[in-house]
Amino acid sequence: MSSLLEQEILSQPEVIAGLLDKETRHIQQIVAQLPAFDYILIAARGSSDHAATYAKYAWETMGRYPVALAAPSVHTLYDAPPRMNNALVVGISQSGQSPDIVAVLAEGKRQGRPTIAITNDSNSALARAADHVVELHAGQEKSVAATKTYTAQLAIMMLFAAAWSGDQQRLTELQQVPEAIAKALQSAPEIAQRTERYRYMNQCVVVGRGYNYATSFELALKLKELTYVMATAYSSADFRHGPIATVEEELPTILIMPSGAAYADMVELAQDLQKRQAELLIISDAQEALKMAQTPFAMPTGIPEWLSPITAIIPGQLFGLHLTLTKRLQPDTPRGLNKITLTR
Amino acid sequence: MSSLLEQEILSQPEVIAGLLDKETRHIQQIVAQLPAFDYILIAARGSSDHAATYAKYAWETMGRYPVALAAPSVHTLYDAPPRMNNALVVGISQSGQSPDIVAVLAEGKRQGRPTIAITNDSNSALARAADHVVELHAGQEKSVAATKTYTAQLAIMMLFAAAWSGDQQRLTELQQVPEAIAKALQSAPEIAQRTERYRYMNQCVVVGRGYNYATSFELALKLKELTYVMATAYSSADFRHGPIATVEEELPTILIMPSGAAYADMVELAQDLQKRQAELLIISDAQEALKMAQTPFAMPTGIPEWLSPITAIIPGQLFGLHLTLTKRLQPDTPRGLNKITLTR
Repeated sequence: MSSLLEQEILSQPEVIAGLLDKETRHIQQIVAQLPAFDYILIAARGSSDHAATYAKYAWETMGRYPVALAAPSVHTLYDAPPRMNNALVVGISQSGQSPDIVAVLAEGKRQGRPTIAITNDSNSALARAADHVVELHAGQEKSVAATKTYTAQLAIMMLFAAAWSGDQQRLTELQQVPEAIAKALQSAPEIAQRTERYRYMNQCVVVGRGYNYATSFELALKLKELTYVMATAYSSADFRHGPIATVEEELPTILIMPSGAAYADMVELAQDLQKRQAELLIISDAQEALKMAQTPFAMPTGIPEWLSPITAIIPGQLFGLHLTLTKRLQPDTPRGLNKITLTR
Repeated sequence: MSSLLEQEILSQPEVIAGLLDKETRHIQQIVAQLPAFDYILIAARGSSDHAATYAKYAWETMGRYPVALAAPSVHTLYDAPPRMNNALVVGISQSGQSPDIVAVLAEGKRQGRPTIAITNDSNSALARAADHVVELHAGQEKSVAATKTYTAQLAIMMLFAAAWSGDQQRLTELQQVPEAIAKALQSAPEIAQRTERYRYMNQCVVVGRGYNYATSFELALKLKELTYVMATAYSSADFRHGPIATVEEELPTILIMPSGAAYADMVELAQDLQKRQAELLIISDAQEALKMAQTPFAMPTGIPEWLSPITAIIPGQLFGLHLTLTKRLQPDTPRGLNKITLTR
């Protein structure tokens, strides 16, 4: 019998297709109704924070709104919420229950700012605190490690980016995503086999840049939660500012490098890492990149860079699942974690 | 002969005292001259980004201005700079040379926004792009790993926080800092001796929260640059959202937990980690906290939490230095790094 984690990974084409059906128009309506604002403040933790990191890039480049990621402690520990003049306030939480995320949204509302909740539970405290609620429509997520709710959050960020871009073409591009996810999932048997090699890996680094900076954090978190591997995420730029010193022969380095504006910089990094004898695992749609890897993970081609985070995380999720199985661990019940984390 | 790194660590009381002398009044003048703004956008990388992370907390709680950390790639890779209406734009760079950090500040200026450069080189490209320049006055930093320029950047962030708080008492508190650093440096021989135990450590996690979230990132970076240990930084809240699964018996966990608003949450985490049999290294001014550790690093007492990041990093720097020596590595010339990283 397959694990809940595997079932949830495999359900993603259907989940995202359903979400696009149900929320495309709704999100356009929300965008049309919002009062004027200068910048966007997002509160989120864990995988939701990685969706927020994606939004930082997508909303800045396509909506031209600066995005600030909230420090919830400022509200909950120091009781000193900032003045949110001219901000749009967004909270992202699968469960909608994290008290610190709810606190940021509630403060936005108290200050009279427009607020949006993005959550899988439309009855949650987060949903009740917001002017607008966008549901993930992902069904209950039973596995502790988030997969379908993460890609659903990404799809919602993409819908807002498309709406703010004012370019109808963006919505057409988005319609390809469910099929691209389905195609990415077809690599599962090959990924399962390639994962054997990492049976005794106990640490690794994960590097992405631009839109896929978020992907590197999400993949590192999956590996930590599921396989207890000490995985550390970086942007290629930050990586060069010091942490690259940790690379030595054999260190597994996962590079997320689909075609696009960040690609050339990632190729340069891959070449540098080859000289340092790192073990390269490369997630890409470019043959040139895949050829540089000890372990290539091919992504579907033809997906524009701004949508690539959703297809790039799929081989990452499959690698996480199969590494868990290869290491003879339990995918559905990672040690020491609960599904809902109530941080204050 | 002592290393350049050690000399620079030891020079910090003098550097910070000199900086407070030269910049206290100047920063108050800058604050008085700034036009109105709603939020602050900071561009920085590496250790400077950790100073920016401190500012995110200190400027939000004491100035009540939301702080956004810029994604420089948005400017340099995607050529899609956001509209910075009502923002104050700040760039932080020791060398003042990183092209991507300069690009953010230059764009702020192009959009008619007020700009501030914080740099050790008043003739640098970053300084030339700004309306106001605040110098670190740290003298040339010869060691690759930043120490005195990091604490100088922190002190500048603290001076701005004090100015925005409008509370004269804050400036009085700041005057204690050089002496507190000198006191922290007196633990060097004890730290050198305690570090022996970690001769064969090859990975660790570093956790801090609130004002000291920045300290956890800065200490992790020092360990990576100098000792090649795979060190990963977290806030205690993010750590509970997944990565805590990686903790197993013997994993060295460094907790930065001075007295203050974040302390109770950190004590709770320390108790949880004790149950998981983690090896605890604790940086604190509280005896109760130090008693929980296999390896306690005592900080000077009597420093308010908002200033504690500058005294908390000192034992961290000394631990980094002595771990480098214990592992028989070179403190002044980490492998594969240059002093100036020109990321685009």
